[in-house]
Amino acid sequence: MKKIINNPNNVVEDMLHGMVAAHPEYIKKLDNANVIVRKNSPIKGKVAVVSGGGSGHEPSHAGYVGTGMLDAAVAGAVFTSPTPDQVYEAVKAVDGGAGVLLVIKNYSGDVMNFDMAKDLADMDGIKVESVVVNDDVAVENSTYTAGRRGIAGTVFIHKIAGAKAEQGASLEEVKRIAEKVINNVRSMGMALSSCIVPAAGKPNFTLGEDEIEIGMGIHGEPGTHRENIKTADEITEHLVNKILDDISIEKGEEVAVMVNGLCSTPLMELYIVNKKVNEMLQSKGIKTHKTFVGEFMTSLEMAGYSVTILKLDDELKALLDEPANTPAFKNIK
Amino acid sequence: MKKIINNPNNVVEDMLHGMVAAHPEYIKKLDNANVIVRKNSPIKGKVAVVSGGGSGHEPSHAGYVGTGMLDAAVAGAVFTSPTPDQVYEAVKAVDGGAGVLLVIKNYSGDVMNFDMAKDLADMDGIKVESVVVNDDVAVENSTYTAGRRGIAGTVFIHKIAGAKAEQGASLEEVKRIAEKVINNVRSMGMALSSCIVPAAGKPNFTLGEDEIEIGMGIHGEPGTHRENIKTADEITEHLVNKILDDISIEKGEEVAVMVNGLCSTPLMELYIVNKKVNEMLQSKGIKTHKTFVGEFMTSLEMAGYSVTILKLDDELKALLDEPANTPAFKNIK
Repeated sequence: MKKIINNPNNVVEDMLHGMVAAHPEYIKKLDNANVIVRKNSPIKGKVAVVSGGGSGHEPSHAGYVGTGMLDAAVAGAVFTSPTPDQVYEAVKAVDGGAGVLLVIKNYSGDVMNFDMAKDLADMDGIKVESVVVNDDVAVENSTYTAGRRGIAGTVFIHKIAGAKAEQGASLEEVKRIAEKVINNVRSMGMALSSCIVPAAGKPNFTLGEDEIEIGMGIHGEPGTHRENIKTADEITEHLVNKILDDISIEKGEEVAVMVNGLCSTPLMELYIVNKKVNEMLQSKGIKTHKTFVGEFMTSLEMAGYSVTILKLDDELKALLDEPANTPAFKNIK
Repeated sequence: MKKIINNPNNVVEDMLHGMVAAHPEYIKKLDNANVIVRKNSPIKGKVAVVSGGGSGHEPSHAGYVGTGMLDAAVAGAVFTSPTPDQVYEAVKAVDGGAGVLLVIKNYSGDVMNFDMAKDLADMDGIKVESVVVNDDVAVENSTYTAGRRGIAGTVFIHKIAGAKAEQGASLEEVKRIAEKVINNVRSMGMALSSCIVPAAGKPNFTLGEDEIEIGMGIHGEPGTHRENIKTADEITEHLVNKILDDISIEKGEEVAVMVNGLCSTPLMELYIVNKKVNEMLQSKGIKTHKTFVGEFMTSLEMAGYSVTILKLDDELKALLDEPANTPAFKNIK
């Protein structure tokens, strides 16, 4: 295992200290927990949006803490759900009196632990609501998950619910818009290679020299099948068709697109993928309002990518276009 | 070779079409050349800043075309200098009458071909000046290079010269500030693994299972030496010390830092590196004004990173803080 780390047991702490050192204008770390919060937290009267999960998916989620997105990100150990206590500390640190929305990716451990934190906060009289993201159309009831997994589409929930909260909306309104995004977003991915959890020190799955996995999860959970590598166009066509089979998008409707690199895939290849995504949408008369190409929800050093399509209406479009200013996501209106 | 591509001979064209499809609000492609220009080019009366080089270093350089950075980026074949004709087409497309500054990374082919383009433009009466970036402190006179190589520090030239041009400065002033950045910027990198040029289909160097290369170039050119992998702190200490040995930065002076991932290194590890960089600078009483952590100048799928340190004065600091809005680099003042 070649990794640029010090002690495998301290990778999350080392990373979080390095993040705060890099971005003190945006974020700070809580002293008593692996939680990154907005520098000016809590913001009085503003609904706070909190997300998190296991580490190893950077910039998710701490990279999205800042104006117009998250108020806090809870960093569990690598590929491990944060504890209820950690989430509870995050909630207490960012509640400005208007309540807190928890954005949870659909993994059984995350759902359970975020829910327990909600119960703890309820006892303190903090209003907490939650939404569960399940955008991955590949498989139902995967390892770690009942139902569908939450993957890169989660970043659209952060962006849009964060913009709504920034405008001063109520907790009920922020939750309503988050659920609307969840209903309208779909993703699917593929991998060329596995990743190595630092404490394990070996790949969590292996693929043959010409083999790829279609529909795997962001922790290496099995996908729909393995096959020999095909062209970028062929693979992308399969992923986009699976997404469009799952959600009705009519000719003339608008979408936002995210082509997300899992880590080791060159940006060159992500743009080659986007060429095909764009051609497919155009040929169906679907209008692309905005496209994001880069690394948004990674999986340690896994090679591969996912495609996310978010169906827009006027409300979602306006919120997507609102300003955001965070370490990993900036939007200039 | 597993790559997400179609035809290895068309990767640059496919990528550029995918980029324009993703970012039509910023960029367009010239019909007659692999050149990306600002959507609103040419801008009358503004000095244009043009860069480029071989492809395979994305988001360099087309990702930096937009407000406050580049006016055009010339995309050669993978790891191959653009032709003089290509550069000349870029110059003609973006000259708004105030002249053009070429920002060239120090590779013999790039220097020669950009210079020939300058001669062609001179004959047309277009004022063209050029600067050559040589920030890599690792080695002198490497493969492809007389003198030192130009690597990730180039992005600071784009940012700062681009800001100066955006303010309406003359060509002489934009060139002066670009040279000031070049005098003040130093970088050095390390690699855990090689990259694969699509048309070659095999790694351009190989490293042992526990072996790393210190000071290699962004095309896999040899560095100073190979050694067994050490901790992130030990490797980073070596790189930062080599940089600080090469430029005098006094206690109390300010710097900007870039921790640049070459492609396959997780963002988690880049932040672990930044923790050490920050601690070293702090212990020397050097103040970090701004830090950039991410992928700015990549090398196909190479694993590894580089550290760049830019010594600031009030003028450079103010220009670094100016707004920028491009596909890969956004700054909100």
